[in-house]
Amino acid sequence: MSGLILHEYAQSGNCYKIRLTAAHLGIPIERREYDIMKGETRSAAFLDGVSANGRIPVLQIGDDYLAESNAACFYLADGSSLIPADRYDRADMLHWMFWEQYNHEPNVATLRFWRFFIGEAGLNEAQRSQIPAKEAAGNAALALMDAHLARTPFFIGDRLTLADIALYAYTHFADDGGFDLGDFPNIVAWLGRVSALPGHISIDA
Amino acid sequence: MSGLILHEYAQSGNCYKIRLTAAHLGIPIERREYDIMKGETRSAAFLDGVSANGRIPVLQIGDDYLAESNAACFYLADGSSLIPADRYDRADMLHWMFWEQYNHEPNVATLRFWRFFIGEAGLNEAQRSQIPAKEAAGNAALALMDAHLARTPFFIGDRLTLADIALYAYTHFADDGGFDLGDFPNIVAWLGRVSALPGHISIDA
Repeated sequence: MSGLILHEYAQSGNCYKIRLTAAHLGIPIERREYDIMKGETRSAAFLDGVSANGRIPVLQIGDDYLAESNAACFYLADGSSLIPADRYDRADMLHWMFWEQYNHEPNVATLRFWRFFIGEAGLNEAQRSQIPAKEAAGNAALALMDAHLARTPFFIGDRLTLADIALYAYTHFADDGGFDLGDFPNIVAWLGRVSALPGHISIDA
Repeated sequence: MSGLILHEYAQSGNCYKIRLTAAHLGIPIERREYDIMKGETRSAAFLDGVSANGRIPVLQIGDDYLAESNAACFYLADGSSLIPADRYDRADMLHWMFWEQYNHEPNVATLRFWRFFIGEAGLNEAQRSQIPAKEAAGNAALALMDAHLARTPFFIGDRLTLADIALYAYTHFADDGGFDLGDFPNIVAWLGRVSALPGHISIDA
């Protein structure tokens, strides 16, 4: 696989997921950086040429543009061992990836963005009023992961799949959003297992 | 495929997606109803026995329980024509399904739930403060769909895939959430194409 370009903001966990998947698969990817703090993904050039949704990441594959981090990971990993061959396991992996986007990212990642990138002083009233609900929902998501990881070394059995990659991205710096990973020992152990695997790269790689 | 049980709340669009997928595939599904307005998915029996996430739908497959509507649709449709055989198209279908859960459902479906099921008088202050942002984001999601559907009869080319099923569910009663589908003629035409297909069933079927 060649000729891939990742349109990204490198510190975004959603962008990191795609680089981490590519690293495990040994797939080279060219990178183009956009400063989301300056609105560079809302420019006419981005909206018309890269993605009408105005968000990174977008994986460019020749003349095609694929948005949504987990879909880009699936594209890269399709046919590899990062996607289980068993029908139920494959759907269960997707279950965790949809759950990540619905129950985890809007809480764990959004609080990191609000607190670590924008800062609480820069939030508007509607954002500020959502903080308690997002803290509760984020802790519930982490608790659910922790309970699952008490029973299994990786999200789907005993080997790395895209479910681990999707959930590792924002979980491993949940502290930036104000969450205390010390409350979730099974998550901490799993983070260690994931980061010790051959092929693993850090977000700064 | 047999022995499937859908744990659901029939009026939920997320549950309807799974029934609609099964109908197109001719797969019989037994149904168990839970009243989410009475908190029946937050009972200990549900949390311990069906899903620790406390949400419907959950597709039971023998002794296994699969949460997340779009993952359950993928399980049912795996290997069928509802999932494209082409690698890019398959990932592009997933892109629309992840986008649906992140950009569409939390706006279009949540405003339907708040306005049509709970009623504005029953909302708390944090919910009420989110209405303008959810209206804007929901209209932006519908506009993005409308622009895409100006160029293609179905989300992925000229035939029905899970992307259409996932997006049909809450789009076809977006009016319940206060959105005006009259502003989106390409969506209206697409809704007509989807509902005219052999195998289609309504949410009340």
